[in-house]
Amino acid sequence: MFIREESGSFVAFIYQAMFKFEVLNKDRETKARLGMIYTAHGLVETPAFMPVATQGSVKAMTPLEIEGFGFEMIVVNAYHLYLRPGFRTVEKLGGLHGFTSWNRSILTDSGGYQVLSLSKVRKIKEGGILFRSHLDGSEHFLTPQKSIEIQKALGADIMMCLDECPPHPSTYEYLYNSLELTSCWAKICKETKGDSESALFGIVHGGVFSELRKKSALELLEIGFDGYAIGGLGIGESKEETCEMVVLSLSFLPEDKPRYLMGLGLPEDIVEAVSMGVDVFDCVLPTRNARNGTLFTNHGKMVIKNAQYAEDETPVDEDCECYTCRNFSRAYLRHLYQAGEILASRLLTFHNLHFYGRLMKEIRESISRGQFSSFRTRFQLIGGFDKS
Amino acid sequence: MFIREESGSFVAFIYQAMFKFEVLNKDRETKARLGMIYTAHGLVETPAFMPVATQGSVKAMTPLEIEGFGFEMIVVNAYHLYLRPGFRTVEKLGGLHGFTSWNRSILTDSGGYQVLSLSKVRKIKEGGILFRSHLDGSEHFLTPQKSIEIQKALGADIMMCLDECPPHPSTYEYLYNSLELTSCWAKICKETKGDSESALFGIVHGGVFSELRKKSALELLEIGFDGYAIGGLGIGESKEETCEMVVLSLSFLPEDKPRYLMGLGLPEDIVEAVSMGVDVFDCVLPTRNARNGTLFTNHGKMVIKNAQYAEDETPVDEDCECYTCRNFSRAYLRHLYQAGEILASRLLTFHNLHFYGRLMKEIRESISRGQFSSFRTRFQLIGGFDKS
Repeated sequence: MFIREESGSFVAFIYQAMFKFEVLNKDRETKARLGMIYTAHGLVETPAFMPVATQGSVKAMTPLEIEGFGFEMIVVNAYHLYLRPGFRTVEKLGGLHGFTSWNRSILTDSGGYQVLSLSKVRKIKEGGILFRSHLDGSEHFLTPQKSIEIQKALGADIMMCLDECPPHPSTYEYLYNSLELTSCWAKICKETKGDSESALFGIVHGGVFSELRKKSALELLEIGFDGYAIGGLGIGESKEETCEMVVLSLSFLPEDKPRYLMGLGLPEDIVEAVSMGVDVFDCVLPTRNARNGTLFTNHGKMVIKNAQYAEDETPVDEDCECYTCRNFSRAYLRHLYQAGEILASRLLTFHNLHFYGRLMKEIRESISRGQFSSFRTRFQLIGGFDKS
Repeated sequence: MFIREESGSFVAFIYQAMFKFEVLNKDRETKARLGMIYTAHGLVETPAFMPVATQGSVKAMTPLEIEGFGFEMIVVNAYHLYLRPGFRTVEKLGGLHGFTSWNRSILTDSGGYQVLSLSKVRKIKEGGILFRSHLDGSEHFLTPQKSIEIQKALGADIMMCLDECPPHPSTYEYLYNSLELTSCWAKICKETKGDSESALFGIVHGGVFSELRKKSALELLEIGFDGYAIGGLGIGESKEETCEMVVLSLSFLPEDKPRYLMGLGLPEDIVEAVSMGVDVFDCVLPTRNARNGTLFTNHGKMVIKNAQYAEDETPVDEDCECYTCRNFSRAYLRHLYQAGEILASRLLTFHNLHFYGRLMKEIRESISRGQFSSFRTRFQLIGGFDKS
């Protein structure tokens, strides 16, 4: 069904046409929408959540399991794969799809965020970011051209523009200059992309300044991308600010392109952001929390290591049908966690990702049936981020 | 099919009759035999290998996977469960079967080996072993009575007698005295077992002294057990000594009882020991080696972290049909291992246990077909421990 690697401009043209986004249904009461992303590796129903495969593996899970949860796209960190095992190695081994055996869609981040958060010695220059590897201290210069080159080699279905990710809080002046750079890099990324079969998304920045968010969105729109992401949020600003910036950023973005809210993904955040019109999410919370012993349930969070579960024979969530809940008690899971057993990470991650998979399915179904608002109300009872 | 917990002596009688061992087939050229162990939790075809679930979980694996590999019995360490979460807690939660969701047979060790290898402050007395927990330093006194009480509470299908495990090398005198103690404890264990539905195995000791091995075996035989284990081997003595002691110990053990070689389990060791008449094995090698990046294959061991596999697109073992070999390249597995990904432990353990599951199946089939000797020859090409 999907045409794979061949040479010639005709095939390249088909590939270019391959990436597509359609809005299938709109909610009447909110801005939520049901959509479909088409990539060379299949369909991605939206709103979609992407599990994070930082180093080419969704931690503790197999590709088969990820697909079983209903996820159709994962996000992989270009920075990590660039450093280890090396992007040319991955390219030789069939790109990320061949390398990881994940056969569905893959979005790669640019590497910008990881460079700025993980490497200690770094210098942001006009041409790119000078940094030292967090693995071996080797020096690297990540330019927008290089970032796209890496993501192309990795065989991403969706690539992200290289962006500078300023911390919160940052001054207006700092953010203004950062934005100039990010917009300039976005233009270079678009040029470097050329006629690649991979789609390219721009990233709206501007911190918590409405004016800068607007400036960023309009500059990206002028360059023109296959989709638009909202970046630089969930890094310490208040929930009200997050909410305001998401709504504002979205107001400038075209309806016929997918919108991706980067890195934010508490269940209640997802439901709220969907109501604002976000289509795509990624977040390490379900996997990282699981490894730290925190579970998402239909009745709120559960910290499995708490002593109260030491002799609790019930499953994590009576309403959950995942392998973990169907087979194991809270007491056993707590024991595995306390004992540092790998099986704890597996079973807890399995539950959390199953929870997220079901959440996204319920969101899509509720939009499809025109019942998203009542679904949203149920989640607000647990505590959404828009308390205003 | 299997009657579960009920009160009354009639049911207790059924349970007692439940444990049974039958020799189904004997090899003509060697002492290898095909057998069947019956426990309250099903059948165990022998020669059988038991994966080690140290703390109530075969590391990185689910019970479903363990069953899928063809294993019908696992071994759990009473010492670990006694300390955490506590044997009374496990008892309350339905014993090990209810607690871990492993529904087939379970053998528990007595705790003696772990007490002597893990806890730092310990004193062997006539009545038992005084030790401090390796977890919190708390003081405990493990007696043969207590050991059986723990194993009963854990709901083991097969319990092991408490034994002293002397290091290698030990003097004849030390081993003689140790043996006296172990025989004395064995008697107490048998008495404490009473009419429990769990079977009880005695453990032949005596280091590398033929005379002591004989003495140990005869003393245990006089007490009378449901099965006999050979302990105190694989702890530093030469392969020749191991081999000699296994053959000698077996020569005193009755043919109609299962024989269990404790802790030894390289593939070539298993094949050799089967040829001597051993029925049951356990070993941490397939799981521990996997987590250390060492794989068992039909062509010998493979150290996946080696640089030579960095761009190797082939599976670990072309002849292997496990999930790991069917889906992932050596290069990807090496990457996961180097990156410290949990998925590395999962996929490598999966392969190794699949290898062991298939090995045991092939051993049983070869005995059944009268072709064990030719099967054994194939393994000796890799390197068995009986080189004499």
